[in-house]
Amino acid sequence: MKEFWIAPSILAADFARLGAEAEQVLAAGADVIHIDVMDNHYVPNLTMGPQFCKALRSHGITAPIDVHLMVTPVDAMIQAFAEAGADYISIHPEATLHLDRSLQLIKDLGCKAGLVFNPASTLDAARYVLDKLDLILLMSVNPGFGGQRFIPSVLPKVAAARKLIDDSGRAIRLEVDGGVNLETIGQVAAAGADMFVAGTAIFAQSDYRATIEALRREIAQAVPNRH
Amino acid sequence: MKEFWIAPSILAADFARLGAEAEQVLAAGADVIHIDVMDNHYVPNLTMGPQFCKALRSHGITAPIDVHLMVTPVDAMIQAFAEAGADYISIHPEATLHLDRSLQLIKDLGCKAGLVFNPASTLDAARYVLDKLDLILLMSVNPGFGGQRFIPSVLPKVAAARKLIDDSGRAIRLEVDGGVNLETIGQVAAAGADMFVAGTAIFAQSDYRATIEALRREIAQAVPNRH
Amino acid sequence: MKEFWIAPSILAADFARLGAEAEQVLAAGADVIHIDVMDNHYVPNLTMGPQFCKALRSHGITAPIDVHLMVTPVDAMIQAFAEAGADYISIHPEATLHLDRSLQLIKDLGCKAGLVFNPASTLDAARYVLDKLDLILLMSVNPGFGGQRFIPSVLPKVAAARKLIDDSGRAIRLEVDGGVNLETIGQVAAAGADMFVAGTAIFAQSDYRATIEALRREIAQAVPNRH
Amino acid sequence: MKEFWIAPSILAADFARLGAEAEQVLAAGADVIHIDVMDNHYVPNLTMGPQFCKALRSHGITAPIDVHLMVTPVDAMIQAFAEAGADYISIHPEATLHLDRSLQLIKDLGCKAGLVFNPASTLDAARYVLDKLDLILLMSVNPGFGGQRFIPSVLPKVAAARKLIDDSGRAIRLEVDGGVNLETIGQVAAAGADMFVAGTAIFAQSDYRATIEALRREIAQAVPNRH
Amino acid sequence: MKEFWIAPSILAADFARLGAEAEQVLAAGADVIHIDVMDNHYVPNLTMGPQFCKALRSHGITAPIDVHLMVTPVDAMIQAFAEAGADYISIHPEATLHLDRSLQLIKDLGCKAGLVFNPASTLDAARYVLDKLDLILLMSVNPGFGGQRFIPSVLPKVAAARKLIDDSGRAIRLEVDGGVNLETIGQVAAAGADMFVAGTAIFAQSDYRATIEALRREIAQAVPNRH
Amino acid sequence: MKEFWIAPSILAADFARLGAEAEQVLAAGADVIHIDVMDNHYVPNLTMGPQFCKALRSHGITAPIDVHLMVTPVDAMIQAFAEAGADYISIHPEATLHLDRSLQLIKDLGCKAGLVFNPASTLDAARYVLDKLDLILLMSVNPGFGGQRFIPSVLPKVAAARKLIDDSGRAIRLEVDGGVNLETIGQVAAAGADMFVAGTAIFAQSDYRATIEALRREIAQAVPNRH
Repeated sequence: MKEFWIAPSILAADFARLGAEAEQVLAAGADVIHIDVMDNHYVPNLTMGPQFCKALRSHGITAPIDVHLMVTPVDAMIQAFAEAGADYISIHPEATLHLDRSLQLIKDLGCKAGLVFNPASTLDAARYVLDKLDLILLMSVNPGFGGQRFIPSVLPKVAAARKLIDDSGRAIRLEVDGGVNLETIGQVAAAGADMFVAGTAIFAQSDYRATIEALRREIAQAVPNRH
Repeated sequence: MKEFWIAPSILAADFARLGAEAEQVLAAGADVIHIDVMDNHYVPNLTMGPQFCKALRSHGITAPIDVHLMVTPVDAMIQAFAEAGADYISIHPEATLHLDRSLQLIKDLGCKAGLVFNPASTLDAARYVLDKLDLILLMSVNPGFGGQRFIPSVLPKVAAARKLIDDSGRAIRLEVDGGVNLETIGQVAAAGADMFVAGTAIFAQSDYRATIEALRREIAQAVPNRH
Repeated sequence: MKEFWIAPSILAADFARLGAEAEQVLAAGADVIHIDVMDNHYVPNLTMGPQFCKALRSHGITAPIDVHLMVTPVDAMIQAFAEAGADYISIHPEATLHLDRSLQLIKDLGCKAGLVFNPASTLDAARYVLDKLDLILLMSVNPGFGGQRFIPSVLPKVAAARKLIDDSGRAIRLEVDGGVNLETIGQVAAAGADMFVAGTAIFAQSDYRATIEALRREIAQAVPNRH
Repeated sequence: MKEFWIAPSILAADFARLGAEAEQVLAAGADVIHIDVMDNHYVPNLTMGPQFCKALRSHGITAPIDVHLMVTPVDAMIQAFAEAGADYISIHPEATLHLDRSLQLIKDLGCKAGLVFNPASTLDAARYVLDKLDLILLMSVNPGFGGQRFIPSVLPKVAAARKLIDDSGRAIRLEVDGGVNLETIGQVAAAGADMFVAGTAIFAQSDYRATIEALRREIAQAVPNRH
Repeated sequence: MKEFWIAPSILAADFARLGAEAEQVLAAGADVIHIDVMDNHYVPNLTMGPQFCKALRSHGITAPIDVHLMVTPVDAMIQAFAEAGADYISIHPEATLHLDRSLQLIKDLGCKAGLVFNPASTLDAARYVLDKLDLILLMSVNPGFGGQRFIPSVLPKVAAARKLIDDSGRAIRLEVDGGVNLETIGQVAAAGADMFVAGTAIFAQSDYRATIEALRREIAQAVPNRH
Repeated sequence: MKEFWIAPSILAADFARLGAEAEQVLAAGADVIHIDVMDNHYVPNLTMGPQFCKALRSHGITAPIDVHLMVTPVDAMIQAFAEAGADYISIHPEATLHLDRSLQLIKDLGCKAGLVFNPASTLDAARYVLDKLDLILLMSVNPGFGGQRFIPSVLPKVAAARKLIDDSGRAIRLEVDGGVNLETIGQVAAAGADMFVAGTAIFAQSDYRATIEALRREIAQAVPNRH
């Protein structure tokens, strides 16, 4: 398993040909496909539901699918995405009154469980559920709003999350999402992340392979000893 | 303009290649593309948002796009779909406290406005907004729930809506959605509908053209004098 | 089957010994047990859930159990009460966006379906679902609020519902709930009801049998030709 | 009691000196003070609460205060405005699940009860509560949204409401609110209204007395036989 | 006052004869009766309301009644249970926007106030209200969901709560609820709890007395020095 | 700029003449006008909306206007008050799912941003947004409920907030609201606050100037070295 994962957010791809887009970005070296699910309630935007996840599977995509649920309530969507073929399902602590139960539900359905933190949120919600987590996802923009830039005050939280994970001795991925691109990915890696969501940073480029390789070079420069 | 419109619901198409699916079904004789937008609040399912509508336009689809909003609240989604290139935007009276205002918003944004009625709903909500309507859509299954069959008790409501429209003297389309297929489309047409949503009835078939032609033949047999 | 049914509301019984209360009131001549389910959201009170229905069955009660759901949302509670042994399950049209679907769910679970109307509500919600109804329940007080008296302006609605049912030719029970007692039951019967919920009118009396017989005498006097 | 009432909406007055504004408009011939209460939930705007009503009373205003509640839920606000000195309290049927109860609450608190209809709403909600109504208020714009013009399709509803009231034989005021000014007040009066809310039509003028007199002249011309 | 309290959850008793069940379990050595109130909103289940608490009092139960409110909003239910005879009323911090106010309300009504923590919740919500608390209740299963087992990762939180209470110098009970039985009660006591909710662990047994004594023996073995 | 600010809450002023009240209290030495905005959802009271803020500006008030939003959702109200002339806009972390975004919105609109903490809330929500804050407001009563007294357990939180601000090296005002008067203001100042909301403590007095001077003397006595 690679140490660092590039997770292209399909939200930035061409929606008229999502199957081909997913194929191409994986062929270009991406590690997982990241799906941003918004319900116009947890966030002020509506994107895509479980049927897209299922269609990617029917289309032959076998890479891990990493689903970020920006929805409330979450339990029915957890079930729907597990049935649709998701590997990772990540949820926000503010989106459910019964966080332990929702994480357990993800695990019971055979998926890997993630916990997502908005830019202003502390990491406290992870304290008593670390044993159920496979992934911690830190938002470096506010989810669901357009046109935002990387929020640098998230970097110390990346470092805090890295420490929390290392201290736990558990194999928990540390993912960062929001404004990650050639300019910022180095700092994010240096702060301790090992999984990077990139949307327009990849899909708005003509050459996916060259872009992903450039992103990997930035990571390697930022954390030379770990690569 | 054709008297009867076939409106394939893209919800039943291959989501990995929506652009190609839309092209093919239009080439096969469909009149409009029907998009079912669900937000997991108005209905217990989450489907697709405005970005798909926009992607169809970018993909070169110029046929009318007929958007059925099964969401609450509705005003922000009306705005988003109008900007994404929708032609018809239909809303449910139960989904907004200010129905007149939401219909006016659709018109102000340059779109055609539709009002949708669930199977149990009376047509009363149309009474004081007929002058703002371009479309009345009657659901013949309950929206958002799977595996349902055509509800025959909707047929007298189709007839009542036809009379309401004819009495008004206005050019309002009468669309029916839910379980419309080769077995049922004739009755629906005979009851007065002139726009027919079909999902799996078209997309689950191998030959879209033959299917659409067969649907049209059923309509013609049911209302020979009008064709 | 008797023409007129007395349905004691167990909400007025001694909650410390519900099993015995149900047994006694049935032995005294009651036809069904009526359960008022309130969730502190549809109405400003919280009463009892499905476990009570199940306990009555375990306790040996075999008479029909008539459940009035004053809850929103309703679908999960429909399922829970069907599993708990309910015979009739009645819901409010304002409590669900998908009334046809919820009524169908009651039927699919093998129960009889009822539709309940608040004092101010018109009967319009019944129009397109009459074929799914086994019961129409008219509230003659506002549900969930204490200390109210029978609202006489409901009487013309009882008559209208009687006509609606007779015109449909269907075997639909017409139940009235709220302030029904020795003073009012005659008018309610005369207006067309054939099922009568009584709470304190029965359970606050020392002799259940004498009370139920007195209620039946009032009905017989009011509608002598039908008894 | 005058046959026609002019009800200036204080929402259009100078909020820095509401007491003086109310005094002046009453001295200029207004019959009641109309207060528009918005909670940013029933409508997308927040205006004023019960404390303003109370302050007008403390300021010496003795004219009837006519409160239009655009809030949900309504019962606590009914209580607060009754305590604050309101005379008329009007509510929307969509804003409460227990309309009969909320109207009864208004009456129990010693106030006069009104029922308000949005532009798209039918009058059905009034059918079974006519005996509790002192006022029917028809909105001729969508409440809570700015910059709207009088919706002419409301005029037939004014006529329908007039007939409903006359047929009932009850003393129920028929008020219209929204875009009422010198151009429209005549039609509104001709259609059957007898109480007219005017905001900017009065408060944006320099001479309140001249304006109110001009409005009365328009009414008199439109319904000469009744004045 | 005993150092360790056994609190049988009446939710696991025979609902057809709650009065007798409460009597028997108290006669068998239980210290308090625990009532689990669920509203189908804070948790996905509906159980029992204030009337049951009142019925236990009318039935002659004088032992402390310990009410766990799994409802939102909470203030009206606090009032209803206080009037119904509750001694302890415990609430969840996520269930109210005004936690200090709701706890103060419990105290003002003459009851003892408890704060409940879901399995994933940190103890932070207790920090600024310790002076208002008589009870801290830690959930060791997710409330409202069936068929769950004791969550061992709650044990360090029991220890943390014990330390918080001891450091405060206040007489605050530390209660644990969820999967507490003969196998787990020892660990829970060892971690610092002094009040133990047991449902099926008691009511599913034929001999309540023997069961409660066995539970006490486990506690004594686990914390020999304190007994 | 003065070290200590007196912020009279206009909620306690005479609402019939708010413009004059604001003028007088500023002339008497107040530093800012504090506006308490309640929407009957975040708190159980409804007060005043943006139009009052705007009216104060039109009335000639040029002092800073300090708006405390007790509303949910917050973003539309932020926009409305910014347009209405507010200087400071403070929001509650529980009132928005996207706190970083809402604070950024306040800044983008050219206002100063505040974060408000209810009596039971910890300061954790401030941790990752300190760089966006101009104000921290600690509630020393529960907002929206009447007749409450200063909660002394808030004083250690004032001290904790003072330390948080000093450690950050940022120019963040520390405001306290609730039961601040001649008896309590000294303790509040000693604990570290530098901005004091006072409602009835000022407006219920006949001489605003004498009262404000007395409040300042209490502050000066409590923190002699800082004045």
